[in-house]
Amino acid sequence: MGALGANAELIVGRTAEAVAAGAHLVAFPEMALTGYPVEDLALRRSFQRASRQTLDELAARLGAEGLGEATVVVGYLDATDSDIPQLGRPAGSPQNALAVMHGGAVVARSAKHHLPNYGVFDEFRYFVSGNALPVVRVGGVDVAFAICEDLWQEGGPVAACARAGAGLLVVINGSPYELNKDDTRMELCARRAKQANATLAYVNLVGGQDELVFDGDSLIVGPDGQLLCRSEQFAETMLVADLQLPRATVDPTELVGTEEVAVKRTTISAEPFPAREALRMGCADRLSAEAEVYAALVLALRDYVAKNGFRSVILGLSGGIDSALVAAISCDAIGAENVYGVSMPSAYSSEHSRSDADDLAARTGCSLRTVPIAPIVDAYLDAVKLTGLAEENLQARVRGTTLMGLSNAEGHLVLATGNKSELAAGYSTIYGDAVGGFAPLKDVPKTMVWKLAEWRNAEAERRGETPPIPPNSITKPPSAELRPGQLDTDSLPDYAVLDDLLDDYVEHDASAADLVTAGFDVDLVEKILRLVDVAEYKRRQYPPGPKISLRAFGRDRRLPITNAWREHAPRG
Amino acid sequence: MGALGANAELIVGRTAEAVAAGAHLVAFPEMALTGYPVEDLALRRSFQRASRQTLDELAARLGAEGLGEATVVVGYLDATDSDIPQLGRPAGSPQNALAVMHGGAVVARSAKHHLPNYGVFDEFRYFVSGNALPVVRVGGVDVAFAICEDLWQEGGPVAACARAGAGLLVVINGSPYELNKDDTRMELCARRAKQANATLAYVNLVGGQDELVFDGDSLIVGPDGQLLCRSEQFAETMLVADLQLPRATVDPTELVGTEEVAVKRTTISAEPFPAREALRMGCADRLSAEAEVYAALVLALRDYVAKNGFRSVILGLSGGIDSALVAAISCDAIGAENVYGVSMPSAYSSEHSRSDADDLAARTGCSLRTVPIAPIVDAYLDAVKLTGLAEENLQARVRGTTLMGLSNAEGHLVLATGNKSELAAGYSTIYGDAVGGFAPLKDVPKTMVWKLAEWRNAEAERRGETPPIPPNSITKPPSAELRPGQLDTDSLPDYAVLDDLLDDYVEHDASAADLVTAGFDVDLVEKILRLVDVAEYKRRQYPPGPKISLRAFGRDRRLPITNAWREHAPRG
Repeated sequence: MGALGANAELIVGRTAEAVAAGAHLVAFPEMALTGYPVEDLALRRSFQRASRQTLDELAARLGAEGLGEATVVVGYLDATDSDIPQLGRPAGSPQNALAVMHGGAVVARSAKHHLPNYGVFDEFRYFVSGNALPVVRVGGVDVAFAICEDLWQEGGPVAACARAGAGLLVVINGSPYELNKDDTRMELCARRAKQANATLAYVNLVGGQDELVFDGDSLIVGPDGQLLCRSEQFAETMLVADLQLPRATVDPTELVGTEEVAVKRTTISAEPFPAREALRMGCADRLSAEAEVYAALVLALRDYVAKNGFRSVILGLSGGIDSALVAAISCDAIGAENVYGVSMPSAYSSEHSRSDADDLAARTGCSLRTVPIAPIVDAYLDAVKLTGLAEENLQARVRGTTLMGLSNAEGHLVLATGNKSELAAGYSTIYGDAVGGFAPLKDVPKTMVWKLAEWRNAEAERRGETPPIPPNSITKPPSAELRPGQLDTDSLPDYAVLDDLLDDYVEHDASAADLVTAGFDVDLVEKILRLVDVAEYKRRQYPPGPKISLRAFGRDRRLPITNAWREHAPRG
Repeated sequence: MGALGANAELIVGRTAEAVAAGAHLVAFPEMALTGYPVEDLALRRSFQRASRQTLDELAARLGAEGLGEATVVVGYLDATDSDIPQLGRPAGSPQNALAVMHGGAVVARSAKHHLPNYGVFDEFRYFVSGNALPVVRVGGVDVAFAICEDLWQEGGPVAACARAGAGLLVVINGSPYELNKDDTRMELCARRAKQANATLAYVNLVGGQDELVFDGDSLIVGPDGQLLCRSEQFAETMLVADLQLPRATVDPTELVGTEEVAVKRTTISAEPFPAREALRMGCADRLSAEAEVYAALVLALRDYVAKNGFRSVILGLSGGIDSALVAAISCDAIGAENVYGVSMPSAYSSEHSRSDADDLAARTGCSLRTVPIAPIVDAYLDAVKLTGLAEENLQARVRGTTLMGLSNAEGHLVLATGNKSELAAGYSTIYGDAVGGFAPLKDVPKTMVWKLAEWRNAEAERRGETPPIPPNSITKPPSAELRPGQLDTDSLPDYAVLDDLLDDYVEHDASAADLVTAGFDVDLVEKILRLVDVAEYKRRQYPPGPKISLRAFGRDRRLPITNAWREHAPRG
């Protein structure tokens, strides 16, 4: 995000590769030049100017590097030339824009028409809407260009594209991952291609940005909605395709479009490109649900670490399943040699908490050191009298402070290992296990933690490698080990039941009455809703983590802290 | 927030008082029934239903309590009856609405037309826009009703009000405080009253809600823009006024309005109320800048503590100015008997860090205990080798953990005492001094911290009371005391320069080039911008605090964590 020069460099390099592979048209994702989402940086005039200037330099550079014959489209941050300051209009009138470059110059520009402002999106805050559809004649084919949400909403640019009679619609996207979204996208692309009566190329961002992970999954469908080719998920790839496209017949000076969206035509080359033997195009295999989520977590962590200037991570290894899975993800993301585990046994730690952590380190090759916390806890207890929950929390906080000390001394990023089920119910210690710069499992329910661990181990078996997760970490009953014999089930229902209830309440906004109707015990509903509702402050203080589900805590679900609303389950 | 029943109760009680004072028309603020802002609760259908049901019960209750003769307007959360689920439309089609109640029933409703989506507002996420202006004939006078942003934007409901020929425009608001906003509001009300050619009654919310504090400042201006009466700032008050209003002459069945906004007329009573001797109306004195900010901080803290179920606060008292000011604010907000100070000297603490804390406790009457942290720090240093910055941070974290332990054991809310200048520059320890549930000075620059301390002491002198802040805390040079002889100026420029630069960069989005042009040293600009840009993660982890300035960190200024954008100051 914000690395304009480095992003431009990548675009030049990839264009050169695409041109070497014979491409006439090369497309990069939404806001590829700036990164996405840029948030309030969009409102900084100096950033707007820098983005526009970098774009102009990029176009010139492509020409200078002998890539001017290719038509290249890229997403960037623009600003309207007529910026009339007005209450409620984003400062500088920024636009989420695309530019079509050719011959060393920008030949067409347009801005996103539909601005999403729901879920993780806040685009009414950041952007001014565009109202034009660029249609560029390239090799005698009319190619229309649109941006992300323009594809999701009825009407707008897609309708204008149909009116304009374009043969190809290129849509550049910054569409964040969520479980099974690839199926939704595929259906959407097929439907819109038919509506536009055009071949549709869907180009999506790949990588992690704070709480969002972009899964790529770029694809091309024919005007009949048939899938022609599709790229791998979660991997930066160049999808090269030879398409049979209709030669444009309309007069390029003809004005069409809809009331909402005007068509703006440009001609780069009116004559068809010479015929050649078409490339064989393929569709990458789809990943299973577990493989998909695991890949998302690995990519999100890798990018967060690197893009924030870290090289290594440190985490507490308790012998439990959450920290074991985070360690396995970390080893896959940045290499076991960059993963530092710390076992921090207290007076209440079980023997297996240490032996399972040892086993994990042996299996993955990550480093492991032991810092017994009992003397530190005792020093606190000498100074202030703490018992019960206060003493339990103290142990978690001593561990958090120890990890932060090692992070400050050695430069590792601290990972918090809590899962979504715990966070939902507030089963976490603020400034304790919640310490860290990134929380890989923040949006992963406990039941899915187990599934991912089993999937990752099975995957290792399949590849003839050592399964990374100790089987005992998977099978033993979960415990925070903050008092003798403590089990998660002392405070929470069985995770299968809890996750089921949370899925209805958090992801699907079911009411207390809905939950009772769905068969959940009325007392359980009352208890869990209360736990979830009062834990908002804890969740806000938790580190960011990658969004996996329909509705992640954080930018996806925004609730007040000061909140007296309690929903009661109907009885009798 | 969300306390529907309690809010309805307050509205009934206040209506009874107003009626007893002779009021024919009683107005409550925007979303008074639900609280404001409700954030994603607006999207919960069960909350929408509860709000609507509470409104109906409230109307009936007013009738049943013999208050049905009064016309009462209140803000609440509604939802459109035709909720067609649609991508990007808020779930359940919620509306930021107002209801006019009379005779035990709701007689008119409308929804906010202009939805603010900038600064601290996200109303495109939450609400569906309304397109009607209710005009209700009460005592023969046509009274129009609108909501907050409808007043701030040109056109829309104000223009429709002018077309409808209403004699009185009542605007209900949830308009958050920022320094000197009262002047802006006054000018706005005067301008709009003239545009509408109507008397204008501006009714604003009072109280704290997470990062926002609402300052009240309700007022009435005549159609000539002349101020008629105005209530106190930061205090829940009933502003009772007798107004001379023109008798309506238009046919109430006549349809007027603008293209954007339709006028919907209702008649409650067509005949004028009997004449009576008019009340003498007054305008509360305006507060000075320091008095205004101080009052905002006191109110915000008081409400945050009470509405989150706390009764007391705990904070570290270092002898420095920030913690001294927070202690004084706390004593004013909830009483010294509910304020718990903790002195936590380390090996590097100065003698005056203890004596100034003692002096503060003696002056304010708050409790003070001492917990020496050296033995705890030593226990950590025996377990892990930490030096330099890691050791400095460790001390801050031991203090944070100590405060959290006491909070867990005794039930106090922990206050973080950092100021905006430190937060901007990242001069703070995550999980150390950043520990807490609320941060009163989060939006107060250091130079204003000193001004507020001096103002509060002078105010005490004026009242013949003991000034709460130790003079030595005001005059001594600021130091974190985390290593021998440390001063803030070792790491930061003089606060007068820093605050000046931050004001330009953070509040007014000046570019690096602008700052150099404005006369700041180029190396200083480069250094401070870098400090501010990399501190985003620390700021996100800081507790919420009341917004005072034009642009508070948090919901007012939203930047990515993963952010490589660095603006460089032009040289030579």
